[in-house]
Amino acid sequence: MDNSRPALAIDIGGTKLAAAVADPGGRVVTRDRTPTPVGLDAEQLWRTLEALFTGVLEQAGIHDPAELAGVGCGCGGPMEWPAGVVSPLNMPGWRAFRLRARLARALPGLPVRVHNDAICVAAGEHWRGAGRGHANMLGMTVSTGVGGGLVLDGRLVNGSSGNAGHIGHIVVEPDGPLCGCGGHGCVEAIARGPALAAWAQEQGWRPGQLDATARELAGDAAQGHPVGLAALRRAGRALGIGIASATSLCDLEVVAVGGGLSQAGPLLFDPLEQALREHARLDFTRQVQVVPAALGQSAGLVGAAALILAADRYWSPD
Amino acid sequence: MDNSRPALAIDIGGTKLAAAVADPGGRVVTRDRTPTPVGLDAEQLWRTLEALFTGVLEQAGIHDPAELAGVGCGCGGPMEWPAGVVSPLNMPGWRAFRLRARLARALPGLPVRVHNDAICVAAGEHWRGAGRGHANMLGMTVSTGVGGGLVLDGRLVNGSSGNAGHIGHIVVEPDGPLCGCGGHGCVEAIARGPALAAWAQEQGWRPGQLDATARELAGDAAQGHPVGLAALRRAGRALGIGIASATSLCDLEVVAVGGGLSQAGPLLFDPLEQALREHARLDFTRQVQVVPAALGQSAGLVGAAALILAADRYWSPD
Repeated sequence: MDNSRPALAIDIGGTKLAAAVADPGGRVVTRDRTPTPVGLDAEQLWRTLEALFTGVLEQAGIHDPAELAGVGCGCGGPMEWPAGVVSPLNMPGWRAFRLRARLARALPGLPVRVHNDAICVAAGEHWRGAGRGHANMLGMTVSTGVGGGLVLDGRLVNGSSGNAGHIGHIVVEPDGPLCGCGGHGCVEAIARGPALAAWAQEQGWRPGQLDATARELAGDAAQGHPVGLAALRRAGRALGIGIASATSLCDLEVVAVGGGLSQAGPLLFDPLEQALREHARLDFTRQVQVVPAALGQSAGLVGAAALILAADRYWSPD
Repeated sequence: MDNSRPALAIDIGGTKLAAAVADPGGRVVTRDRTPTPVGLDAEQLWRTLEALFTGVLEQAGIHDPAELAGVGCGCGGPMEWPAGVVSPLNMPGWRAFRLRARLARALPGLPVRVHNDAICVAAGEHWRGAGRGHANMLGMTVSTGVGGGLVLDGRLVNGSSGNAGHIGHIVVEPDGPLCGCGGHGCVEAIARGPALAAWAQEQGWRPGQLDATARELAGDAAQGHPVGLAALRRAGRALGIGIASATSLCDLEVVAVGGGLSQAGPLLFDPLEQALREHARLDFTRQVQVVPAALGQSAGLVGAAALILAADRYWSPD
């Protein structure tokens, strides 16, 4: 592969669409984003995305696809992987949308690789962020959901359907709250932002705004609100137990935690650490380190670029 | 590599030492075993092992190490990996014993690879047993402990210290019984044979023999003893929840369960399946299949041979 060409990176989520040109070292050269349109049909959504990445390519002075090494794209799941046929939960306009094929048609002659957004975030954090230099990492996003991606023995793990890394559905309380997946007591059922806010309201917390958010709850916790603090302890404990289990199973060195809720800082990370250390007691599991993610909003784009620019570690199905 | 030579395979456990010559396809040509000596010092243990594998090589008509492709060895942990410096929990005579170096000195000029015994069992089941043809498998052993090994994206996963696969320390009941690791509510704390027998005795089960074993308990359960049945349900549930978590995290296709307790059959596997299906509710996790291990006592030897004979999939640190 010609290692001198940049990649087009695309990150498709329920709240925003983002595109960037990344240089071969994974640095973002140009980028742009737009809120994910609501209420549009499949073709209208596609045209919004196409306008976005066309603009980014123009901005980077790229007029011919042949100037690119390829196209990497992260997208909300579920999807058929590696076919790149996507049905993002939060984008009802796309159901079994042939995203990979459409990208390949728009930018002919290039490798086009689509993967789950949480996996791209983990790949980005591993390649250029908090997991750099560690061969065994779990990258987590704690936000509206709890997602993740695994890098083991120096390679991104896909699993049988491209869904490896779903730390959000590790069970931490078998008789606990119902999860969106239909199970009970998953990490996500307890630690996702909306679950946290709902739990706090049950405990008597009264948000200032109509749409009670975990962000507001974390803000109140920072001011010392006891229910806010208890909610973050509860989430931290669930995350810590889930991380302990993942560490035992995968012999991890580092867990990078990002996403909106991770902004709560020590109010979340302290109880997380406490639960983790209570449960990770084997010599090898004690070694694991939990660190904040380093790339913020860029992680998904950098990871999408990695599918092309560092394919030896981050892409295996071809 | 010359693909026509056999490997010497060695399996070192707390109850038995085994050695075999395996042909390049992983079939055992000759084998022998002996109970693990109790009360011997490090050198006496080594001489017992050396006599065992020397006999097996003679039996196979191998008089020169150059006739072998290499030596693969599974050994009880913990160990320094890949250095092969071992301190098997159940063999107090070996503490920081330089097993790999000793094997290399005894059989000069060959690659010598030592890995955790549970990982060798999983590798064996993947290469030649119940996991054959599946790129994503967890191999489990449910016995005195609960161990395992992971194959993901077609390769054996090592993790940062060669300890990946420790399904026994996934947490399934955070406030549950104390585990040997120091944590609480690990799969192993509930489902290991001795824990099961102890729990049953607390519930009023009276074993016929002084050393109440899970085997006897399973026998009583098969006769309809209600505490025996409850004990197997309890173990099955813990295993099922642990497998659900592992499936979510690793996107597994198949889980192969072996070890003494797996002989209990449907009395264990039915509650295991029930708990698994209650908790594995995502489209991709529903696909996972739990199957009995296929190789029995040979799995560890076959997996040890795989470290040499199928190193592209089962050995990466060199």
